Amino acid sequence: MKGASACLPDILIEPVIKAALLEDLGRTGDITTDAVVPATVVATGEIVAREPGTIAGVRAAELAFRLLDPTMQSCILAPDGTQVGCGDVVMRLTGSARTLLSGERVALNVLCRLSGIASATAQLVAAVEGHGVTITCTRKTTPGLRALEKAAVRAGGGANHRFGLDDAVLIKDNHIAIAGGVAAAIERARRSVGHLVKIEVEVDTLEQLKESMGVSPDAVLLDNMTPDQLREAVALVQGRAVTEASGRITLATAPAVAATGVDIISVGWLTHSASSLDLGLDVVPA
Amino acid sequence: MKGASACLPDILIEPVIKAALLEDLGRTGDITTDAVVPATVVATGEIVAREPGTIAGVRAAELAFRLLDPTMQSCILAPDGTQVGCGDVVMRLTGSARTLLSGERVALNVLCRLSGIASATAQLVAAVEGHGVTITCTRKTTPGLRALEKAAVRAGGGANHRFGLDDAVLIKDNHIAIAGGVAAAIERARRSVGHLVKIEVEVDTLEQLKESMGVSPDAVLLDNMTPDQLREAVALVQGRAVTEASGRITLATAPAVAATGVDIISVGWLTHSASSLDLGLDVVPA
Amino acid sequence: MKGASACLPDILIEPVIKAALLEDLGRTGDITTDAVVPATVVATGEIVAREPGTIAGVRAAELAFRLLDPTMQSCILAPDGTQVGCGDVVMRLTGSARTLLSGERVALNVLCRLSGIASATAQLVAAVEGHGVTITCTRKTTPGLRALEKAAVRAGGGANHRFGLDDAVLIKDNHIAIAGGVAAAIERARRSVGHLVKIEVEVDTLEQLKESMGVSPDAVLLDNMTPDQLREAVALVQGRAVTEASGRITLATAPAVAATGVDIISVGWLTHSASSLDLGLDVVPA
Amino acid sequence: MKGASACLPDILIEPVIKAALLEDLGRTGDITTDAVVPATVVATGEIVAREPGTIAGVRAAELAFRLLDPTMQSCILAPDGTQVGCGDVVMRLTGSARTLLSGERVALNVLCRLSGIASATAQLVAAVEGHGVTITCTRKTTPGLRALEKAAVRAGGGANHRFGLDDAVLIKDNHIAIAGGVAAAIERARRSVGHLVKIEVEVDTLEQLKESMGVSPDAVLLDNMTPDQLREAVALVQGRAVTEASGRITLATAPAVAATGVDIISVGWLTHSASSLDLGLDVVPA
Amino acid sequence: MKGASACLPDILIEPVIKAALLEDLGRTGDITTDAVVPATVVATGEIVAREPGTIAGVRAAELAFRLLDPTMQSCILAPDGTQVGCGDVVMRLTGSARTLLSGERVALNVLCRLSGIASATAQLVAAVEGHGVTITCTRKTTPGLRALEKAAVRAGGGANHRFGLDDAVLIKDNHIAIAGGVAAAIERARRSVGHLVKIEVEVDTLEQLKESMGVSPDAVLLDNMTPDQLREAVALVQGRAVTEASGRITLATAPAVAATGVDIISVGWLTHSASSLDLGLDVVPA
Amino acid sequence: MKGASACLPDILIEPVIKAALLEDLGRTGDITTDAVVPATVVATGEIVAREPGTIAGVRAAELAFRLLDPTMQSCILAPDGTQVGCGDVVMRLTGSARTLLSGERVALNVLCRLSGIASATAQLVAAVEGHGVTITCTRKTTPGLRALEKAAVRAGGGANHRFGLDDAVLIKDNHIAIAGGVAAAIERARRSVGHLVKIEVEVDTLEQLKESMGVSPDAVLLDNMTPDQLREAVALVQGRAVTEASGRITLATAPAVAATGVDIISVGWLTHSASSLDLGLDVVPA
Repeated sequence: MKGASACLPDILIEPVIKAALLEDLGRTGDITTDAVVPATVVATGEIVAREPGTIAGVRAAELAFRLLDPTMQSCILAPDGTQVGCGDVVMRLTGSARTLLSGERVALNVLCRLSGIASATAQLVAAVEGHGVTITCTRKTTPGLRALEKAAVRAGGGANHRFGLDDAVLIKDNHIAIAGGVAAAIERARRSVGHLVKIEVEVDTLEQLKESMGVSPDAVLLDNMTPDQLREAVALVQGRAVTEASGRITLATAPAVAATGVDIISVGWLTHSASSLDLGLDVVPA
Repeated sequence: MKGASACLPDILIEPVIKAALLEDLGRTGDITTDAVVPATVVATGEIVAREPGTIAGVRAAELAFRLLDPTMQSCILAPDGTQVGCGDVVMRLTGSARTLLSGERVALNVLCRLSGIASATAQLVAAVEGHGVTITCTRKTTPGLRALEKAAVRAGGGANHRFGLDDAVLIKDNHIAIAGGVAAAIERARRSVGHLVKIEVEVDTLEQLKESMGVSPDAVLLDNMTPDQLREAVALVQGRAVTEASGRITLATAPAVAATGVDIISVGWLTHSASSLDLGLDVVPA
Repeated sequence: MKGASACLPDILIEPVIKAALLEDLGRTGDITTDAVVPATVVATGEIVAREPGTIAGVRAAELAFRLLDPTMQSCILAPDGTQVGCGDVVMRLTGSARTLLSGERVALNVLCRLSGIASATAQLVAAVEGHGVTITCTRKTTPGLRALEKAAVRAGGGANHRFGLDDAVLIKDNHIAIAGGVAAAIERARRSVGHLVKIEVEVDTLEQLKESMGVSPDAVLLDNMTPDQLREAVALVQGRAVTEASGRITLATAPAVAATGVDIISVGWLTHSASSLDLGLDVVPA
Repeated sequence: MKGASACLPDILIEPVIKAALLEDLGRTGDITTDAVVPATVVATGEIVAREPGTIAGVRAAELAFRLLDPTMQSCILAPDGTQVGCGDVVMRLTGSARTLLSGERVALNVLCRLSGIASATAQLVAAVEGHGVTITCTRKTTPGLRALEKAAVRAGGGANHRFGLDDAVLIKDNHIAIAGGVAAAIERARRSVGHLVKIEVEVDTLEQLKESMGVSPDAVLLDNMTPDQLREAVALVQGRAVTEASGRITLATAPAVAATGVDIISVGWLTHSASSLDLGLDVVPA
Repeated sequence: MKGASACLPDILIEPVIKAALLEDLGRTGDITTDAVVPATVVATGEIVAREPGTIAGVRAAELAFRLLDPTMQSCILAPDGTQVGCGDVVMRLTGSARTLLSGERVALNVLCRLSGIASATAQLVAAVEGHGVTITCTRKTTPGLRALEKAAVRAGGGANHRFGLDDAVLIKDNHIAIAGGVAAAIERARRSVGHLVKIEVEVDTLEQLKESMGVSPDAVLLDNMTPDQLREAVALVQGRAVTEASGRITLATAPAVAATGVDIISVGWLTHSASSLDLGLDVVPA
Repeated sequence: MKGASACLPDILIEPVIKAALLEDLGRTGDITTDAVVPATVVATGEIVAREPGTIAGVRAAELAFRLLDPTMQSCILAPDGTQVGCGDVVMRLTGSARTLLSGERVALNVLCRLSGIASATAQLVAAVEGHGVTITCTRKTTPGLRALEKAAVRAGGGANHRFGLDDAVLIKDNHIAIAGGVAAAIERARRSVGHLVKIEVEVDTLEQLKESMGVSPDAVLLDNMTPDQLREAVALVQGRAVTEASGRITLATAPAVAATGVDIISVGWLTHSASSLDLGLDVVPA
């Protein structure tokens, strides 16, 4: 989804955050905080950006505190998709100091990671602005976090590729080799899937592209092509299929790719290698 | 654990991989492969390094295939901790082509991420070689993957900090503020925890360090200190506690920090911001 | 998926069958069999059709026994999609008599239900043969069994509509009312979803259909239209979108609907109201 | 339980509905509604009967909305066991239009199915009225829904047979064959089970019935007997055991069976083959 | 179940043992064994009785090792229900020394506890021998272990009371108070439950007993009565209901209670307060 | 943790209590209460001590009611660690009489067990008072209840040993045998674990103790030594390691052991063989 709200139902976020809390609390909880901080101390915490970027995962971070203690008060200042500067407050939380300190790491782990993805996406989106191209992520996501990471890409202004192996057909080189050709593979897929499933095919050469256009895929993934090849491919497709460029495209090379007229640029590193955005929790007197 | 085997019991790895498979298979599985690849085709796949690095997560990757199909044959050529070069084969798998293609993405997602962490760790370990310092990660890990990521750090030659909030005391600035001082906080913690729990305290200044040494912590985390301050701190501690340097230490600045004589350098980015190692699956005729 | 293999990965079937076994075994298992049948008795059981129909769910039924006892031997004589007559053997199982008797009910519960769905689908498919129309089910499935029931529809020769709320857009009357019109709703959806997501819109009148064709949906659901209206609608669409007829279509009315030239007939009762197929387990001397 | 309230604790219903929601929401939720309906739109929905019948599963349907959004307001007009006519409102819901549309299918799937079971039960109960016979279901229930379906039978005025393999002994033909006789089987069971477990035995002939009465079972299941045989059986038992008639009894044949004087008529099709009751959600301006 | 095999399906035992292993392994497993014992060392372990008693839980203990490592070889010398003397070997295990040491504690924790329950039961059974009375446990079991503890009681020669709140009616003082009398409570229950559910009522006085016998309960729980009162109660019941004595009955007082002619003596301490049986694991050269 | 608050986060307690409720409610809930007690009856219940002791598990007991019905009102009069006398009220609950009766057994099962552990601990702590020794439990806990049982030991004034195999090193006889000596084993462990993991070694003789002190363990477990040997051991260690006495120490022998000057006495029976504390629920007019 492109430019749209990155909303996910709570019922999809909660299991991820609950598992993360249990992972961090272990068998007996936060022994430092329980020993040092009296149960009655109330405090306010602010999650603050330590570097500029784009925020994603605010609801997940909020749930890290509220699943520990439903009475925690929270106020979101920078919802998903917000561009923040250094020092900007993303969220303010008030309640038990113990909850604030015990939930901090889980909240930041998820918020920093997702904001890192959103920030990288926003940068890439900015880099190709004006070309009418859409930036999408891939299935190269962190095990267990796909829905959250895909939402982070949307928060950064990108769109999503398929969510899994079951919601769209993507025919790759190995499928083609076993099927004995691009056209045969596409035809087998079309006979097999329902009327609401799109079919995309990955092609490495213009010859493969020509062959596949003969059987009308919904989209073509032009893998590891040069800008010149991409331009030729786009001309060849003539709008009869969505064109997607892929293969080690970086912030530096993206503008040239975008200029070829492809519809989509997909990049795996948005989700598998983006750096976390630096955010911290400042505890202030309640 | 430093330099040791990075073994994790299967019973701890399987739930992570099973969840990742279910996330990718969705409601009905790999519709592309099921449509295009006949059930009887047998194939061999090789997971190959596309860039040099250090491998981690081999057992997790293997389980991605075997949880789909227990008859899958696998042969590991580069176990965890192995340095590989471009083109080196990490693992060879033989069995149903469908399983090979349906499990590929989950296997690579986990292997590339963990090998990225191991590779970053190995680089940092190499950068401080000769100083007798130990590289450790932090709790800034991916939700749900802490055990695997900590094992990846060990595979890269690093060691592990605490695994959660419950297995060691780490007194930080907010704890100290609420307790009304470093010494008070340490004493509260000591009265509270069992005899097999170590106590570490984070200090920002040499004054705090002096105060804390008066109550004999097991370890001191010297946060955001310059090399000169670290050197003074090490001299002040005189081996009575483990000394740990922390705070935005990079590959570039690590050698200078290591040279101050601290015992431990801890770095969050090993787990939250390391790039994935580039590995791919090549399918070869069976 | 139409006419294709109805295969589902075991990893998607096992949790359903395991839950069903636990539901039936309760807290202490099959107290009748444990009391009456010695642990050492070996027996063979045959699952036999007591009426003609189309089989689906064979692997699920097999797992009901094997999850109780992995040493159970099974031989499948009528795989999913097979038309069976009264008295035909679907599956033969040999092993512990206790396992055979304790697993019987769960195996039959799932097999009879799914075969009932497959049989109803096959009847409907036969009824519209020659018209080039595809029969599909809907999301009106049994809670927890969607993947298995959708596979049963495929086993019966039908195809699948979307699997959930997330894998395709289906704009219905309430969406249109809130969006302020068919075209507005489709445009909002298109801006929001990724390039591999199809958009279908439900229309009640030819006016709505005309408006929606102006913004090029991938498919149109023609709801509760008469054959004459459907014929007009098909003429109006002219192949620019997939046409789907829906709304209380029965075995009796389906041929007339099919004759209108629509591409798809979708029916909820295949999954929510089909009768179980009558199958039984005969225990024969081992 | 006969004629009694069909109440189930929420803690038993919630996991079923939560699983159904996750099954429908998939990885990213209701993409149509999220794209088309603004988050701020409030609406009221009414679940309305489209045909006459008996309601069951109202709490389950309500939870489909409330597990998505705990602030959803609901008002139940036709609690479980209510006979409704065409157009009657079962439940009214007010809150976020998104929640209303995203929860609709899960709510209706469970409510229509359970109300179908209650309606079929109520019809059968009415058909045998005046004979003092009790209608019960069997263990031929939908995997995962046994507790809800058994409660639906109670809502329809029926009673429940055993809930699983562990809460009562039911000795069937295969048990008898292996034990070497009805009496031997009953005696083995009696020695094995606790004092709060009843023992029922299935008999096919009057000879078997005589043999079994010699060892005093709590109940006898008279399988596939004609009304005349049943009458003889009832005379033979003389009230010393509960008598249950079973075996393909339909709405048409039930009165004759009831007239034989048996205590119980048990029917599998109430749960495995009842048609769903037709109910729909009408959205009205808030 | 009395004197019968204490078998439980593996599918009911495995989740308990898996959870116990995860609880003990924590986030990273057995760090002592992994550090000290090379992966290649093979060893044999014997679980040996350190005091005389009755064994229960052998399969659960075996699974503690096999869930860690399916290749572990085991040989059971003292199956459930065996009386062992000091030094007797219960089970012999051969395989990876690491698995042996890592699984030891979980295996012993479950085996010692369940054998403690079986041993206490066997002692109590022996104490009342010759009186024709049955010893049963109650629902005062350890959270999560009910099925295993009830099986341990059977292994010790006892029988089981109801397994939960749903498989039999037990009307207690508070129910009677709210219903307004014993007879009213029993009648309400009889109208509500199915024909395979027994009804027991707890009475404190002979007057209550008389009132309840007027409505024919299946069993009467004679709570906290003296032997004289019990004798009178048994005479009053005249075999028309099962008689159960309960209320702080000890090994010392049980014979006098048994001599009163009651059918059942039920004791909570068998499951909530029995001491563990002392068993240990001896590792011997492989 | 010694003498400290025994607080556990709710998120760690809830799954245990939820599982216990499901275990007790079975498939359809409390059939006695649902039949006999009208849904509208409100009542107050008091959990009352029937014998003197120390309370633990109050929050767990409270959750047994609140997870059934979040509107249940509760008032805690004797929080964890309170010494109660016979007749003292621990907790008062007001709400639906059904909830009170249906949740009673689960609440008491957990509260009586945990209070039994706390009471045994408190007795042992009292027995060694004045010697400056700390009482700890071991890993001999009930499967699934470790965190709650360890918290109960703290409530009784004791401290906790390690929580699992992963949070501290404990080298035992079998490790030493395989490693080829105490010192070798300790050195292997030290090279393997992180800087926040303590190392304890179990020694049987003073010779082993001497050898181990040469490689500076953090703690030594003096297993099955006589008071004289313990005294010698303490003298030998000279405060360079924590000294822990272990091995069948009873309430009777503990004072003599404490008098030897050891730092810690660890006892398995606190958790595996302590009798439940007798507590009951009295229902009073609302």
